[in-house]
Amino acid sequence: MTARAAVILAAGQGTRMKSPVPKLLHKVGGRTLLDRVIDTVEAAGCEKIIVVVGDHSPGVRALVVKRLGEGAVAVQDPPLGTAHAVLAAKAALADFNGDVLVTNGDCPLLQAADLNPLFALRASGTDLAIMGFKPVDGLLYGRLILGADGHVIRIVEPKDATAEELAVKACNAGMYCADRAALFGWLDRVDNNNGKQEYYITSIVGLATAEEKKVRVNFAPENAVMGADTPMQLSQAEAIFQARARAHFLAEGVAMAAPETIHFSWDTQLAPGVQVEQFVVFAPGVTVETGAVIRAFSHLEGCIVHSGALIGPYARLRPGADIGEDAHIGNFVEVKKVKVGAGAKANHLSYLGDGTVGAKANIGAGTIFCNYDGFDKYETHIGENAFVGSNSALVAPVRVGAGAMTGSGSVVTADVPADALALSRAPQQNKDGWAARFRAMKIAQKAKK
Amino acid sequence: MTARAAVILAAGQGTRMKSPVPKLLHKVGGRTLLDRVIDTVEAAGCEKIIVVVGDHSPGVRALVVKRLGEGAVAVQDPPLGTAHAVLAAKAALADFNGDVLVTNGDCPLLQAADLNPLFALRASGTDLAIMGFKPVDGLLYGRLILGADGHVIRIVEPKDATAEELAVKACNAGMYCADRAALFGWLDRVDNNNGKQEYYITSIVGLATAEEKKVRVNFAPENAVMGADTPMQLSQAEAIFQARARAHFLAEGVAMAAPETIHFSWDTQLAPGVQVEQFVVFAPGVTVETGAVIRAFSHLEGCIVHSGALIGPYARLRPGADIGEDAHIGNFVEVKKVKVGAGAKANHLSYLGDGTVGAKANIGAGTIFCNYDGFDKYETHIGENAFVGSNSALVAPVRVGAGAMTGSGSVVTADVPADALALSRAPQQNKDGWAARFRAMKIAQKAKK
Amino acid sequence: MTARAAVILAAGQGTRMKSPVPKLLHKVGGRTLLDRVIDTVEAAGCEKIIVVVGDHSPGVRALVVKRLGEGAVAVQDPPLGTAHAVLAAKAALADFNGDVLVTNGDCPLLQAADLNPLFALRASGTDLAIMGFKPVDGLLYGRLILGADGHVIRIVEPKDATAEELAVKACNAGMYCADRAALFGWLDRVDNNNGKQEYYITSIVGLATAEEKKVRVNFAPENAVMGADTPMQLSQAEAIFQARARAHFLAEGVAMAAPETIHFSWDTQLAPGVQVEQFVVFAPGVTVETGAVIRAFSHLEGCIVHSGALIGPYARLRPGADIGEDAHIGNFVEVKKVKVGAGAKANHLSYLGDGTVGAKANIGAGTIFCNYDGFDKYETHIGENAFVGSNSALVAPVRVGAGAMTGSGSVVTADVPADALALSRAPQQNKDGWAARFRAMKIAQKAKK
Repeated sequence: MTARAAVILAAGQGTRMKSPVPKLLHKVGGRTLLDRVIDTVEAAGCEKIIVVVGDHSPGVRALVVKRLGEGAVAVQDPPLGTAHAVLAAKAALADFNGDVLVTNGDCPLLQAADLNPLFALRASGTDLAIMGFKPVDGLLYGRLILGADGHVIRIVEPKDATAEELAVKACNAGMYCADRAALFGWLDRVDNNNGKQEYYITSIVGLATAEEKKVRVNFAPENAVMGADTPMQLSQAEAIFQARARAHFLAEGVAMAAPETIHFSWDTQLAPGVQVEQFVVFAPGVTVETGAVIRAFSHLEGCIVHSGALIGPYARLRPGADIGEDAHIGNFVEVKKVKVGAGAKANHLSYLGDGTVGAKANIGAGTIFCNYDGFDKYETHIGENAFVGSNSALVAPVRVGAGAMTGSGSVVTADVPADALALSRAPQQNKDGWAARFRAMKIAQKAKK
Repeated sequence: MTARAAVILAAGQGTRMKSPVPKLLHKVGGRTLLDRVIDTVEAAGCEKIIVVVGDHSPGVRALVVKRLGEGAVAVQDPPLGTAHAVLAAKAALADFNGDVLVTNGDCPLLQAADLNPLFALRASGTDLAIMGFKPVDGLLYGRLILGADGHVIRIVEPKDATAEELAVKACNAGMYCADRAALFGWLDRVDNNNGKQEYYITSIVGLATAEEKKVRVNFAPENAVMGADTPMQLSQAEAIFQARARAHFLAEGVAMAAPETIHFSWDTQLAPGVQVEQFVVFAPGVTVETGAVIRAFSHLEGCIVHSGALIGPYARLRPGADIGEDAHIGNFVEVKKVKVGAGAKANHLSYLGDGTVGAKANIGAGTIFCNYDGFDKYETHIGENAFVGSNSALVAPVRVGAGAMTGSGSVVTADVPADALALSRAPQQNKDGWAARFRAMKIAQKAKK
Repeated sequence: MTARAAVILAAGQGTRMKSPVPKLLHKVGGRTLLDRVIDTVEAAGCEKIIVVVGDHSPGVRALVVKRLGEGAVAVQDPPLGTAHAVLAAKAALADFNGDVLVTNGDCPLLQAADLNPLFALRASGTDLAIMGFKPVDGLLYGRLILGADGHVIRIVEPKDATAEELAVKACNAGMYCADRAALFGWLDRVDNNNGKQEYYITSIVGLATAEEKKVRVNFAPENAVMGADTPMQLSQAEAIFQARARAHFLAEGVAMAAPETIHFSWDTQLAPGVQVEQFVVFAPGVTVETGAVIRAFSHLEGCIVHSGALIGPYARLRPGADIGEDAHIGNFVEVKKVKVGAGAKANHLSYLGDGTVGAKANIGAGTIFCNYDGFDKYETHIGENAFVGSNSALVAPVRVGAGAMTGSGSVVTADVPADALALSRAPQQNKDGWAARFRAMKIAQKAKK
């Protein structure tokens, strides 16, 4: 197979997003737009990926460096048009032989299956393959003017188009595929003789046809190539992502009475036989095994829920929560970086942060793992079959041994041996009549006012 | 009126649900599919109900035994087709004289009003009444071939149908009604001369018409007879159930600003004048009286909320919660098996489990009823006008008398007499400068690293 | 410009709402229907507003008095028709010279931009300007019979209409605008010669045309003039309000992945660059500054969130919460009447009510401000950089000084000096083997039963 590379254009300012966050760092399905396009071109088999960034968004550059290395960054500065942007990647691809795909970095719904036809056109003798689409509203898009044989003759921007050309439904999606040498050959010859004095990649069509090269189009669904330039478009892309995810998990055998109230991330993994109630958010990094039930109003992120576990309602599982088989995490309970053993229970109003809970241990209502001293975090370890009384504060670092108990309302600052009972409790005093006298005093005070 | 019986076919495997839970135990509106069909045939006046189960789903059998008794179970083993399934019920109906309705067990939206026309056809001289429908997509359904006079001539399965027959819109919904003796007479004569060597109930149409019996169809809306074979179909049925419930409660005078965010169960009872905010789940068994307000993000199950009470936001009422008139249950508060008196308040971060709260009592923020010792549950009783201080642990069994108070942060292990104050509090020590020294030490430690 | 006044008809019973709350006190976008119409006529420049109320709804009268003063109330008693209702305002407008707008009080989606064309008609020589609309279902509405020149000839109620008249799409929205003197002149001459013996305002059309006055119509969108007579209609108006609000905030640059799960109030203020996750309710009175993030399942009311703050998930901000720059309010945390300083954190299961939290202070998990003694509320003040240990009860009135710490599980009843450590903790006792003996006893008990 011909080798594949991708040039991702990520130098736009994205000002229409009206956000302090650069456009390509906005997310769909919990994944940045740029990561999603990189995922897609990787899945389409691109072995070399160059991302063209501007110098105005250090965060975009940092993402590329972290994920793909310094060598994947090409800088366009100043911005002089799309052809100029792709040319910024020329040096990095100098030694590459094969097909180069050019795409925008803001197509959150694009999938490898949408790109494959472009490479297939190349494989079947097309010199320049262009992605087209037929938008409901073509207002902003260049029109693809096709010859009688279906070849692309030229691309006309709406402002330069005749009425007849404006009536053309076929539009340019801004994705191109050609042999590396041919592509950069054309790009080197693009001029900027236009109103804005910019170098437009669409000019390569004319250069290729002048050489009697074959220029063909592949049409993709509008959703596949839709950009996300505004908060509204971003929310529309998210809605489509969620609809796809819901249909996917239903087809896989995940039981969801109200799928429209469940929100997934790009990497959510739910096994067949999982049950999910209403109003659940799966932030990134969640795996749930079969037979587990995620009850209403739960929020999960970066965690694993093992088979048969019962989560929620109103449970919050944070990164590092590992909930064992048949364990229960109940309402208003937060778990972070804690491995909870099989069959253990923490059902009410608790904070479990940093540590472990042994199998079949019971964590009483209102239990707090006091894991932070303002500077460092410390761990709490609860042994198997231990019983932590309600409203206990466990001051980490601390260990409660297997089978040990703690009295309700205790502050546990020292380790508790296995099978022991820990208590820290002031004796109860009842002051007879005190409440009645207090009330009488208060009522008298109120009466005076 | 002619006596009515029902045979419910519940022997299917339901493998398309891809679930460890048998299909008929999946739920719509919080009620199993099988219970819903039993509800419906009971509402349609069927005085005898036989459920045909397979031997692969002990849970289905158990449901039938629990609800209708052993006598209602007929076992089909092995499965040899729909006629064979109905014949499994023959013995149990041997002494019954009247009309027998045959229906599938997985029609979650079927209502008695949908069935009555079948019995009406019988009453007006039809020998075999068949439920038809006109699905948007008839791919999977047998076609009802009707004669010029509207009588059913035969039922053709899609795989056996001619192109002309496939174009017929009228499809078989799989529900039949006939006199008991006639029905089993036909069924006894159904053969299995077909590819799968199964006994199909649709064959009775040919047997009946051969006897010049009247076979007629009643058409039901597609929703009424839709099956639920997959998680997707189940979620579609749930969506229709919820839409019906929302329209019903709006028409009854329940105020809901965002009804599309409120989820009901089959037995939810809300009086006119109840107000429900956004994102509320009514699990089964909830009754709310007029003037009560259910605030956002609340979850109710198996409870009663009396007139004028204010629930939530973020309140969880579990089975046995009985919230008195004008009582308040606030955010992050869980109530289970507790009767809360009129005008009492528990507004913040509390767990009330097993016991009673007297009228006008005030439960402070962070209060925990410590009701469990790892083996047994015990009760907490709070008297009228009592004031439980914040962050108290009440170790059950324990009683706080009428008008008594408990100090904030107390662990109450012994009964508190009426009008007394209970305290269990270690004296506060302030160690001057300790925090400053601690910080200095920590900062020095960090600096070393 | 001609002076403008408004007469708002608010005397209807609203029985179709089936609610103990008067119809006009039901809300859309968290604002009563009547307040919304008053907002609208004020925005349209009406300097004098008279609200005609019945004597059956003291709550409606009270709203008008509180907002506009006693002088704005006109009482219609008994109710004898719409003309009679407007006449109740005659005396109050006796000294007013200018245009009077008559409108119903239950048009929750009406905006000033919808009313301006009526005043414009007046300014361009129309004597009586009428608001029309073309409803999808005209069943209940009077038809506007127009002459060839587009002038209104008469209004025909559906029950009195011929088949030809019923086919007319143009309907009467019940809003009128005319010079004060002319309007009351016509109204004085309306008779009640009809089946119900009521005085109908629609009769003024005939009186005006008889005088050869110009009567013209302005058509508004159906949404703009839709009434809200039933819970269903109210929920439909709310849905339109929310759709408008979501589109508005997206256009302003508020990032919302799932805007359809976010609910706004009439006065919600979100700056560009705010991010809002799924399932968030903005009750009235909320302002959020740029860069703040409102996480899933949060509920905000009457509060301000400053730039860069992180709220939720599951945070409840109540009236008087003022969350400083870059502060964090986390899960299952309630804040009421507390000013939280810049960079302070309260991340888990806490109740902060009445007081202040200093900049960069850290409030441990399970902290409770014990602010209430059953009679009065008291304040808690936490100094800058203070560290409140987990599961602390702070018994107000109390002060924790700057840089001070409190030990986990403490009950703090006395002020803590700056940089000191406060502890109130009973010493921990470990009773070796106690838990094992307890378990053995319990198991033996169970075995006996």
